[in-house]
Amino acid sequence: TIGPASSGFDRGENNDKFFTHPRNPKALAAYLFAHNHLFYMMELLTGVLLMVLSLCEAPAVPSLRLDVYVHATLELLALVMVAFELCMKLRWLGFHTFIRHKRTMVKTCVLLLQFVEAIVVLIRQTSHLRVTRALRPIFLVDCRYCGAVRRNLRQIFQSLPPFIDILLLLLFFMWSILYWSHTILSGVLSPQYFNTLENSIVSLFVLVTTANFPDVMMPAYSRNRWSCVFFIVYLSIELYFIMNLLLAVVFDTFNGVEKMKFKSLLLHKRSAIDHAFQLLVSRQRPMGVSLKQFDGLMRFYRPRMSSRDRFLTYKALNTAGAPMLSLDDFYKFYEVIGLKWKARRSGEHWFDDLPHTTFLIFKGDSYFFPSIFHPSNAVTRLFLISVLAPSPAGGFSWSRMVPWSYIIFLTIYGVEVLLKITGLGPLAYFSSGWNLFDFSVTVFAFLGLIALAFDMEPFYFIVVLRPLQLLRLFKIKQRYRNVLDTMFELFPRMASLGLTLIIFYYSFAIVGMEFFAEVVYPNCCNTSTVADSYRQINVTIGNRTVLDEGYYYLNNFNNILSSFVTLFELTVVNNWYITMEGVTSMTTHWSRLYFMTFYIVTMVVMTIIVAFILDAFVFRMNYSRKNKEPLLDPEGKSNGIVFEAEVSRDEALATLELYKKTCPGLSSLNSLQGVLLAMDRSGSSSLVYLGRRSRTKSDLSMKMYEEEIQEWYAEYSRENLPQSNRSLVGRELDIPPPCPEHES
Amino acid sequence: TIGPASSGFDRGENNDKFFTHPRNPKALAAYLFAHNHLFYMMELLTGVLLMVLSLCEAPAVPSLRLDVYVHATLELLALVMVAFELCMKLRWLGFHTFIRHKRTMVKTCVLLLQFVEAIVVLIRQTSHLRVTRALRPIFLVDCRYCGAVRRNLRQIFQSLPPFIDILLLLLFFMWSILYWSHTILSGVLSPQYFNTLENSIVSLFVLVTTANFPDVMMPAYSRNRWSCVFFIVYLSIELYFIMNLLLAVVFDTFNGVEKMKFKSLLLHKRSAIDHAFQLLVSRQRPMGVSLKQFDGLMRFYRPRMSSRDRFLTYKALNTAGAPMLSLDDFYKFYEVIGLKWKARRSGEHWFDDLPHTTFLIFKGDSYFFPSIFHPSNAVTRLFLISVLAPSPAGGFSWSRMVPWSYIIFLTIYGVEVLLKITGLGPLAYFSSGWNLFDFSVTVFAFLGLIALAFDMEPFYFIVVLRPLQLLRLFKIKQRYRNVLDTMFELFPRMASLGLTLIIFYYSFAIVGMEFFAEVVYPNCCNTSTVADSYRQINVTIGNRTVLDEGYYYLNNFNNILSSFVTLFELTVVNNWYITMEGVTSMTTHWSRLYFMTFYIVTMVVMTIIVAFILDAFVFRMNYSRKNKEPLLDPEGKSNGIVFEAEVSRDEALATLELYKKTCPGLSSLNSLQGVLLAMDRSGSSSLVYLGRRSRTKSDLSMKMYEEEIQEWYAEYSRENLPQSNRSLVGRELDIPPPCPEHES
Repeated sequence: TIGPASSGFDRGENNDKFFTHPRNPKALAAYLFAHNHLFYMMELLTGVLLMVLSLCEAPAVPSLRLDVYVHATLELLALVMVAFELCMKLRWLGFHTFIRHKRTMVKTCVLLLQFVEAIVVLIRQTSHLRVTRALRPIFLVDCRYCGAVRRNLRQIFQSLPPFIDILLLLLFFMWSILYWSHTILSGVLSPQYFNTLENSIVSLFVLVTTANFPDVMMPAYSRNRWSCVFFIVYLSIELYFIMNLLLAVVFDTFNGVEKMKFKSLLLHKRSAIDHAFQLLVSRQRPMGVSLKQFDGLMRFYRPRMSSRDRFLTYKALNTAGAPMLSLDDFYKFYEVIGLKWKARRSGEHWFDDLPHTTFLIFKGDSYFFPSIFHPSNAVTRLFLISVLAPSPAGGFSWSRMVPWSYIIFLTIYGVEVLLKITGLGPLAYFSSGWNLFDFSVTVFAFLGLIALAFDMEPFYFIVVLRPLQLLRLFKIKQRYRNVLDTMFELFPRMASLGLTLIIFYYSFAIVGMEFFAEVVYPNCCNTSTVADSYRQINVTIGNRTVLDEGYYYLNNFNNILSSFVTLFELTVVNNWYITMEGVTSMTTHWSRLYFMTFYIVTMVVMTIIVAFILDAFVFRMNYSRKNKEPLLDPEGKSNGIVFEAEVSRDEALATLELYKKTCPGLSSLNSLQGVLLAMDRSGSSSLVYLGRRSRTKSDLSMKMYEEEIQEWYAEYSRENLPQSNRSLVGRELDIPPPCPEHES
Repeated sequence: TIGPASSGFDRGENNDKFFTHPRNPKALAAYLFAHNHLFYMMELLTGVLLMVLSLCEAPAVPSLRLDVYVHATLELLALVMVAFELCMKLRWLGFHTFIRHKRTMVKTCVLLLQFVEAIVVLIRQTSHLRVTRALRPIFLVDCRYCGAVRRNLRQIFQSLPPFIDILLLLLFFMWSILYWSHTILSGVLSPQYFNTLENSIVSLFVLVTTANFPDVMMPAYSRNRWSCVFFIVYLSIELYFIMNLLLAVVFDTFNGVEKMKFKSLLLHKRSAIDHAFQLLVSRQRPMGVSLKQFDGLMRFYRPRMSSRDRFLTYKALNTAGAPMLSLDDFYKFYEVIGLKWKARRSGEHWFDDLPHTTFLIFKGDSYFFPSIFHPSNAVTRLFLISVLAPSPAGGFSWSRMVPWSYIIFLTIYGVEVLLKITGLGPLAYFSSGWNLFDFSVTVFAFLGLIALAFDMEPFYFIVVLRPLQLLRLFKIKQRYRNVLDTMFELFPRMASLGLTLIIFYYSFAIVGMEFFAEVVYPNCCNTSTVADSYRQINVTIGNRTVLDEGYYYLNNFNNILSSFVTLFELTVVNNWYITMEGVTSMTTHWSRLYFMTFYIVTMVVMTIIVAFILDAFVFRMNYSRKNKEPLLDPEGKSNGIVFEAEVSRDEALATLELYKKTCPGLSSLNSLQGVLLAMDRSGSSSLVYLGRRSRTKSDLSMKMYEEEIQEWYAEYSRENLPQSNRSLVGRELDIPPPCPEHES
């Protein structure tokens, strides 16, 4: 029963669907083969390889160009790998479930298509119009490590309906204003931008993005000063009202989606625990899970956990002290699983036992440094800034002269770091991100000084890190600490959002390359209104001749790197219409559709990024306000979650006996014997262990939605419990848990 | 006691400070003189006059130019008016309080300064550099009707500290990146934008606003393709991360400020009620407020309320049915004060008593119309859109031909409007905003048809309103209803925010005019990088000669209207640096400070507008989700607040007697006699009245913060009650309440 129960926990944690559960030993073997980091890595590499191939396929980056048969063969190879992965999946899912799993089905279809196309390319020895390459990111997105990207994509799609609703409202106002402008203002607006219906729509669309703003108004404004009213009204409604409404609606949906996601993950975990509990409770002992069973489960679920930690985890779950774990105890499983256990020390710091004077030095250290650099202490601050700020005067060559005050401050910081390391002990010191930052900044500063002193040219880049010293000042004020902590917390999520954006970029870049490669060049686009920006010509103004260089021909789709840069420029929005008009004038009017679609897609993604930052920040602020305790103590060490477990000598001995019986002749019991040794040393008959882990977003949410969670659970147990009991009948497998060979 | 008690309510409602309370009968006379709409209007007009004067002062709008002695005399006149208002205030505040009231003191100082300057102008017969005109909006902001603007300004100033903190973070990153760019990338970045320290800072600042984006990168990009990495990293950090953080921080502060504002207003109201209660409770009857006293208070506080409504309000407060109002009853004062009273009818609609068939028609009407235009009914929708959308084809002259389907739909709408008016009765029908909208759109459409039929050229503008018909489709979907309702709710607040923005514009425009008037002109700024935009010259390209018109010389500060347009363009941000660079090249480098300050100020205001829209929308959504009832019923009539009061015949008679004693020989008792008449007609011995009012933001907040409010009250009564008792000793005045002459 233990294998399936443990894999159930896996899926509970990863929010996989339960119907993808392996159903027989053969499937389980395939499942185990397909669920380890080697396999995941292979999936990831295949996906990356397929995407990277577009660097070498025509239109390729010049220095990376490969022959057709080379890149087509590489592609076929990668596709075969993907096919192999799919076959493994088919094996453990079974054909029926495989068909039902939507994402896998889409992947299969795309795979077949790509296969056919790759073979065609290999036969014809030349690339045809392969827009379907834009679908390649699917292989990357489907791989295990890209779960965050998948979640982002889901969130984006969930935010779409309200987004589109407001977009329609925006278009409606645009249309109305267009209608009014042409019945009332037909003589006033400049024919350059408003001569045809298409031009008018494009001009107004670009105006919402403000990219053509004063320019589109200027000709009309120079003829009639009151024409500015039209533009002011239009922008006030569309830009300042409806676009903000768009953000509000997405933000609101986003909040709702986040909450629902949290709810479903929570209920999913609970249901995983239910499943596992049902599997573990054997017919002989229907009341609960014994230590023996639990230990077997843990050896399977977390093979690298030491025997002591397994035992302590069991103790942490078993708060009532009963001989077995009840279902209610078991519900805390995910809360205690990540704990790091440590015996409770008598004092707070190791130096508490030292003589009084030494103690004072270390104690004072914690108060001395924050206070001399306190923001209210303006003299110190200004001094520090003036010292740390290397003067970039004199044509910006950074001075080799190091002011003496810089060395003094560096020494102070060095002493602080040393004191802290000795005071807290290296382990406690480096467990805090802020201390780590302090340490590395100080070390780099010293290295920079050494590089300067010995005139080592290649290491000058270290000197460049000097401005980081200023960040130290920021960490003193509570708001900056909050902001910077939020920044670090946001980082993984931001990275996954960035990856999502890159996947969109990739698809758009492929489409752009297929249609617009080599379309723009210097002095092209003479028929468009933006010809100036593409010009590269000698111009005579009065009696001077100058090179009029427009540079915009560089914003092209000639290879995937150029395309990415061009798309980034389109994302920044400013002057994006110049690229659009240039390409349009050299191709068809339908090209505008590409650019406008891209604008809207990036607007969605960017709005979601904004909503996400807003949400994370406001959530954190609310949370810290609700609990009236700062999330971090002044030392920068996070107040994590702490569990306690008291172990008596008798218990430890009994457990050791039990373990010896289940996995005899192993060195895996060292850690448990260590507990007994520690008891002997301190001379007490019991020892208290503390399990710590850092607070996660999920913990915060638990606290924020406390009331709702009770409702959800009530609702869930009303609906699901009888059913889950039924579905588990006849699914008991018995695989002996592997005994770990050694422990860390 | 009644006068002060009533004025106390006034200040409770308006959140004035209590120490500005009049202290003796003479002061009270001045207080009454200064607190009526005539006086407020005078204040407003004086403020507006002073601001409008800048249209006529040099540099004036050409058609409105006035001689120096004319506008200086007008200004002196307005200033004398302001001085008079201040004197009245001094009279009722007393000198001591006057000095303590900060806003009034600032106003006095500015007034004195303006007086001196106006006299100097009159003597010299020419305007000098009068930057202090930028302070004129103070007179407008101080007037009674601009309370919302004052609140906005306060909110903006309260949001400043966190805003500045994050701005510093932004500047720090800017500075670091500048430092790195000059040590590492010194050869790569183009000297056109990065040659000196000042230029680099300006370029990077403008880059954060994206206004110069691809252009600033292009020269470096054309030389080295990898230089784009610098710009991408810079924009990703500054624009996409820190700017969003800025929004998050302002949003968070905004939420906190809104909540605190609500709290302080709530406690202020409670304290006003405490004050009034203490004043009303005389020594003879220390237990509570009698009907007689309450009635006297109401005649003073709301002179236009009818005697019936005063009585019903008393009944609504007096839920326990005791002979007197206790303090707890009295706490509901602000909740019941705005109620509109109406006798409860037996049925819901008047047609409920009609025969069955007629009833069905009216009843069906409410279900028929929403359902045929349901969004899911795509055919109807598309048809309607195609019909209502007048084709702007054929060179955009709107067609005189009206499609027959348009007439059919208009007829259907006409019938709907008629049915609804007869069904609900005109009063109930027009009390809903959506019905009013339906009605006016239909009427305008008919008028448009008539104008077309009789070929009345000047009325064609009515036809232009046709696109509004489409809004009808939007009202069917719940989300649009929510959005549009929020839009209408936001409207007053948006208007006041707009006014706040205009006040900032005004000050900046004055400063701009004083320093930059007549600075830019065609073909100026040849030394700057933006010379092209100011060019108006014949250019030879190859062998063609074209007029190269840059138009940007139109964005000047030559008079206040031009300045406003220029400032709006700066607000929209796109290409704002062209105006900045142009002006800078013709004046000094310090001019940039003006433009950058303006950018930061508008950024603050705009961020607050975004935060405000976000807050209002999310609040509304949360509220409607929490209560699981839509804020509006399908008929579009808001589910307001409803209070009930049952009146028996004996009570009514007793009250009538009481009123006859206090204000005998008046026609003011009609409404109360009407109650008796209604009882006679229906033949019952008692009548139930319903008091309704629409739900305000304050009601929503009451519900949202339910738990916190109890805490606040507990805290408040712990702190304040003993003190407020003490401060009221010896302040009892007795002024007979005015008897209203007639009632509406």
